[in-house]
Amino acid sequence: MTAPDRLSRLSLNQRTIANADLAEAIAAARAAGLSSIGLWREPVAAVGLDQAEAMIKESGLRVSSLCRGGFFTAAAPADLERAHRDNRAAIEETARLGAATLVLVPGGLPADDRDLAAARARVVAAIERLVPYAREHGVTLGLEPMNPIYAADRGVISTLAQALDIAERFEPTDVGVIVDTFHLWWEPGIEAQLGRAGERILSYQISDWITPLPPDTLLARGMMGDGHIDFAAFTRAVAATGYAGDIEVEIFNADVWAQPFDDVLRTMSERYLELVEPHLSST
Amino acid sequence: MTAPDRLSRLSLNQRTIANADLAEAIAAARAAGLSSIGLWREPVAAVGLDQAEAMIKESGLRVSSLCRGGFFTAAAPADLERAHRDNRAAIEETARLGAATLVLVPGGLPADDRDLAAARARVVAAIERLVPYAREHGVTLGLEPMNPIYAADRGVISTLAQALDIAERFEPTDVGVIVDTFHLWWEPGIEAQLGRAGERILSYQISDWITPLPPDTLLARGMMGDGHIDFAAFTRAVAATGYAGDIEVEIFNADVWAQPFDDVLRTMSERYLELVEPHLSST
Repeated sequence: MTAPDRLSRLSLNQRTIANADLAEAIAAARAAGLSSIGLWREPVAAVGLDQAEAMIKESGLRVSSLCRGGFFTAAAPADLERAHRDNRAAIEETARLGAATLVLVPGGLPADDRDLAAARARVVAAIERLVPYAREHGVTLGLEPMNPIYAADRGVISTLAQALDIAERFEPTDVGVIVDTFHLWWEPGIEAQLGRAGERILSYQISDWITPLPPDTLLARGMMGDGHIDFAAFTRAVAATGYAGDIEVEIFNADVWAQPFDDVLRTMSERYLELVEPHLSST
Repeated sequence: MTAPDRLSRLSLNQRTIANADLAEAIAAARAAGLSSIGLWREPVAAVGLDQAEAMIKESGLRVSSLCRGGFFTAAAPADLERAHRDNRAAIEETARLGAATLVLVPGGLPADDRDLAAARARVVAAIERLVPYAREHGVTLGLEPMNPIYAADRGVISTLAQALDIAERFEPTDVGVIVDTFHLWWEPGIEAQLGRAGERILSYQISDWITPLPPDTLLARGMMGDGHIDFAAFTRAVAATGYAGDIEVEIFNADVWAQPFDDVLRTMSERYLELVEPHLSST
């Protein structure tokens, strides 16, 4: 296979070059020979949905995911209602942009609220409420379990097992899961859980766990190969499920963000070809 | 009950006042009206084991635990051998000091080694090898599952469920678990796992999960009440198992370490009485 073919499933999540606007991100992805991009709502909103839709259409890129809905763990009814409305808008945007899935980041504990079980229960209730609207729009919701480092302030769903316990309450066409190496690499029994997830895997996102962890935990992700994650083993387990979608590189890291976009794309493509792509067809 | 009685199960883990030497830590614990202390090997070694033993005896304090053995995830045989010898020494010290348990911190991934499954398997093998020596000395080994934030560099055992899968290979008098709120507060199904642990709970350690997480993740623990953990619910679940041992406050935090020892003891005693102690007898 030639190199361009080998990149056919690699997707640039926009946050990996967070300083790029939508036009720059599209241009960087195309210049690197990629076929897909993972979008974020904020840079899409910055140009307007109509314009974004036209730009994506013209680019020929697939949209591997839209980030992000969710953040529906608020306890106050008014906050929950606001989150619900925002998620409906995100569903509409996902449909318009033709994205494969809407990524749902659960949200953390409300201020001064320590009831984790209740926050987790609100995630289930919020998804249940969203499903009919998502289905109307042909959108599959992707629940993202997050590393426990974020359990308090960002994502109360902490393991793939826990995310699947929720997703399995719904049809696979309605609710699936986002599998991100940074969040899940440490999970005991992860291979079995990936097997259990099967067709519910809506997106495979990759970045590395680096130590020492950067001071700002929100910017703690590393380039594949710079950290401790065994991408070969993890990727083989994902591939064994039959997952045939895109592989998104999503890296929140101040050093990566400081680099020229093309340099980031070059590095991530190289690392993908070295560490991930060889293991996609191992089954 | 009078206040001193209500403190009867509160223990000062030495690391909570890391700048104190053994004499100062003992004095601080006694001045605060505590009955027990959790020791660390380094400050014990600083005065010598004979002297430490005499000081503890004279103080009348119980030793709720000795920190720490473990760190036996090395891949190189020579490193593993060194770890084994060190753990044998730790077992001898535990027996001499009359500590209730030796805390085992598993250790992380070896440098440039990404095989997490193999590292976890080495934990099992290392414990298996230590058990006869521990039994000879009347010491119960306490395996400590650690927050996944430390999975790469400190503790490859990440959940209470995973620690119990290991501990249950052995007799309860040989191997149990350390339950630390900072490490386990987020674990899905933690109440069921605590129930499963039952008599295997050798130590209940408390500190809070605070956000934003301090830049140095090794010093990221907070005083109870300063963070997101529901100590009432967690403590009730521990109490429901019949756990009747000490409750150790173990806080690694630069701000706490900068305070006068007596201030730290006063605050931790107050928070314990407010947040933890009322839930110890709720069953």
